[in-house]
Amino acid sequence: MNAPLTNTPLKVDREQLQRDFDALAELTEPGKPWTRRSFTPMFLRGRDYLAMRFAEEGLSTHIDASGNLIGTWFGANPKAPVLMTGSHSDTVPSGGRFDGIAGVLCGLAAIRALRLAGYQPDHPIELVDFLAEEPSEWGLSCIGSRGMVGALNGDHFAMIGPDSERLDDAITRMGGKPNTIAQSVRADVGAFVEIHIEQGPVLEAEAIPLGIVSGIAGIARVRLRLEGEAGHAGTVPMAMRRDAGMAMSRLLLALRDAARAEADRGRGHFTATIGVMHLEPNGANVVPGAAEAIVDIRAENDAAMDDYLALIDTLAADAAVAEGCTVAAIERLSRTFAVACDARLQSLIKDAADVHGLATRPLASGAGHDAAFVARIAPAAMIFVPSKGGISHAPEEWTDNEAIARAADVLTLTLSTLDQRPLAPTA
Amino acid sequence: MNAPLTNTPLKVDREQLQRDFDALAELTEPGKPWTRRSFTPMFLRGRDYLAMRFAEEGLSTHIDASGNLIGTWFGANPKAPVLMTGSHSDTVPSGGRFDGIAGVLCGLAAIRALRLAGYQPDHPIELVDFLAEEPSEWGLSCIGSRGMVGALNGDHFAMIGPDSERLDDAITRMGGKPNTIAQSVRADVGAFVEIHIEQGPVLEAEAIPLGIVSGIAGIARVRLRLEGEAGHAGTVPMAMRRDAGMAMSRLLLALRDAARAEADRGRGHFTATIGVMHLEPNGANVVPGAAEAIVDIRAENDAAMDDYLALIDTLAADAAVAEGCTVAAIERLSRTFAVACDARLQSLIKDAADVHGLATRPLASGAGHDAAFVARIAPAAMIFVPSKGGISHAPEEWTDNEAIARAADVLTLTLSTLDQRPLAPTA
Repeated sequence: MNAPLTNTPLKVDREQLQRDFDALAELTEPGKPWTRRSFTPMFLRGRDYLAMRFAEEGLSTHIDASGNLIGTWFGANPKAPVLMTGSHSDTVPSGGRFDGIAGVLCGLAAIRALRLAGYQPDHPIELVDFLAEEPSEWGLSCIGSRGMVGALNGDHFAMIGPDSERLDDAITRMGGKPNTIAQSVRADVGAFVEIHIEQGPVLEAEAIPLGIVSGIAGIARVRLRLEGEAGHAGTVPMAMRRDAGMAMSRLLLALRDAARAEADRGRGHFTATIGVMHLEPNGANVVPGAAEAIVDIRAENDAAMDDYLALIDTLAADAAVAEGCTVAAIERLSRTFAVACDARLQSLIKDAADVHGLATRPLASGAGHDAAFVARIAPAAMIFVPSKGGISHAPEEWTDNEAIARAADVLTLTLSTLDQRPLAPTA
Repeated sequence: MNAPLTNTPLKVDREQLQRDFDALAELTEPGKPWTRRSFTPMFLRGRDYLAMRFAEEGLSTHIDASGNLIGTWFGANPKAPVLMTGSHSDTVPSGGRFDGIAGVLCGLAAIRALRLAGYQPDHPIELVDFLAEEPSEWGLSCIGSRGMVGALNGDHFAMIGPDSERLDDAITRMGGKPNTIAQSVRADVGAFVEIHIEQGPVLEAEAIPLGIVSGIAGIARVRLRLEGEAGHAGTVPMAMRRDAGMAMSRLLLALRDAARAEADRGRGHFTATIGVMHLEPNGANVVPGAAEAIVDIRAENDAAMDDYLALIDTLAADAAVAEGCTVAAIERLSRTFAVACDARLQSLIKDAADVHGLATRPLASGAGHDAAFVARIAPAAMIFVPSKGGISHAPEEWTDNEAIARAADVLTLTLSTLDQRPLAPTA
């Protein structure tokens, strides 16, 4: 057992952290900074770098059945529950330097700080680069974390990507063993902490360095189709139109107003977004005969999601009727449920931030994360760092190195505390 | 001079009219009824049929400099002004059996009726199949009627179509002589009457068999671009958004409301249509950072168009400000001015309809037509027949043969009256 470290909290090596970010930023598809999509040769080059660095910091590395790269620091007690941290190194196209990567490199920085300080853990500590957190060409997100917790099935394996490659074959190509995933579901994890950029504007706007994630929102996608009557732009009088574009415009505003009202109700983080909308037949000289849109809804509270999903029917009918149109489809494309982060871990992270003199605020994650899957098998929590301008999934994505390093400092203390004081039993 | 024909008005041959429609309907691109796009081999097959039929009805046929197919019935007085009728035989893709073709076949039916009755005109009578009234692959409409009136220029000739073919080369391929178009502008036309399907719902809704076109609307196209701030659908709180899709939705509704108000003001036919709208980046999980739309505006009254075009600036600014967005572009893509139909011809057509016991109503054309160009060189008018369900530019486009034949009856009497009683001088 080591002495408590809270009196002189360790700080991670800023320069090494910066070097690791810079090295991974170099590994990008040319002309599309910063792109390292899962299953591509560039992704494997990033992985090679990470595996080398994991080894340099004394970790024993392997690829698990689901294709996750794992670096292990073996503890004194091999039977103790695993303390896990990490995130993902893949990106969306032109996706950015920090999304995912920050969590992997902060884990590496924390382990480096502990090792340089001569710390010897009791528990095994694992650093994970989860496979394919972002939606890949196969159209599925969080492939590695799904696999780790038993949430990948035969339907997923059969999904087809570029060159007609099946997903299970692609996982094999990444070093995984899809046919052993089902037997490899982890039951030995004692806690999981993931650092991630916020990908939103809240922390920056409030000048708070760290967000402690209260929960990860459930996500639903709904396809809407309204139908009116197509007609010649010049010949159908204004008063005789059944313009599906107008009905959809009404609906978008109504959906937004309802989302604002729900967000103000105090039932946690709530958003509804219409990012995709198109008119048919999409001709400048044709009154739209149909309009389609996709609503993306995120709710920290599943009841709030239920209420909103039910409300869509009413809002769509109202908008359609007001324009002489009809609701042709309200199709639930997908839904995941909200995941609450572990309260004990949140509290422990807050204590560690206090030791470092860093302000925090609870914050829901509107984006999905590997932690939402890992939460199925272990207490899980996340630490958010500010995103400049709230921008993510874009080349302009930015977080200062020092801001990230502070989160790694908190992770370092959190890991050593978890190692020394197991989580209290839940009530 | 023939005896007046108004006591026993001639009727056109219904069966022959039907046979001609059926024969042209056969000449369609397979699987895309009914498609005979200008400049294609199928279009030339339609032209071959028409030239044969023109000749069968005793007309002398030729292709003019602009590629128009013209059948001439020489009158007793070769120096008398030409009485012209016709329309076009090309279609939009899957465009329909009647749009344009009705005007050519009605002219043919009227001439047949007059000839079978032994009528011998004093004036030359010309039946024209104008080249490429619909927007072709070259992106220009009313090519033949533009050429006839001196409205085709070098910029038009240089437009590029499929296989990099210049428009002037394509006109040559149709039998025209582009290098003589400038010298061939017609100054010998005394009157032009075009029969066309309404392409709108008004005549059918009011159960009126004939519309006498009061004017052809001017058309403006305006591109709108609103910009906000793209963001992650899950992480940007509802209250912190600058959603360009919401700003555009507001704007579409405001533009429509303003168009309705203008249409109700009594300044003639007025429409505004947004048939094209898209969001950027068009991702289901991204708050739209920009939105674009094209507004198509049609006005019988140019002052109404001026007022509306000015109003767009205000409406766009209001919609943008309400959503924290900005107006990035209001771009005038094109504008044509309204064309009034000749009042004497309208009156003469109404008289002819009265003789036939057919109700009429004045009606503006919201669509563009060859008559709008011919009006630059001669008194011009149009007769509309009802479109079933107001549908046009679609396979479902339909007008009963009898409904078309009635318009041809009126045209027959209008032509013989014009032949016998020149138009009164304008005031």
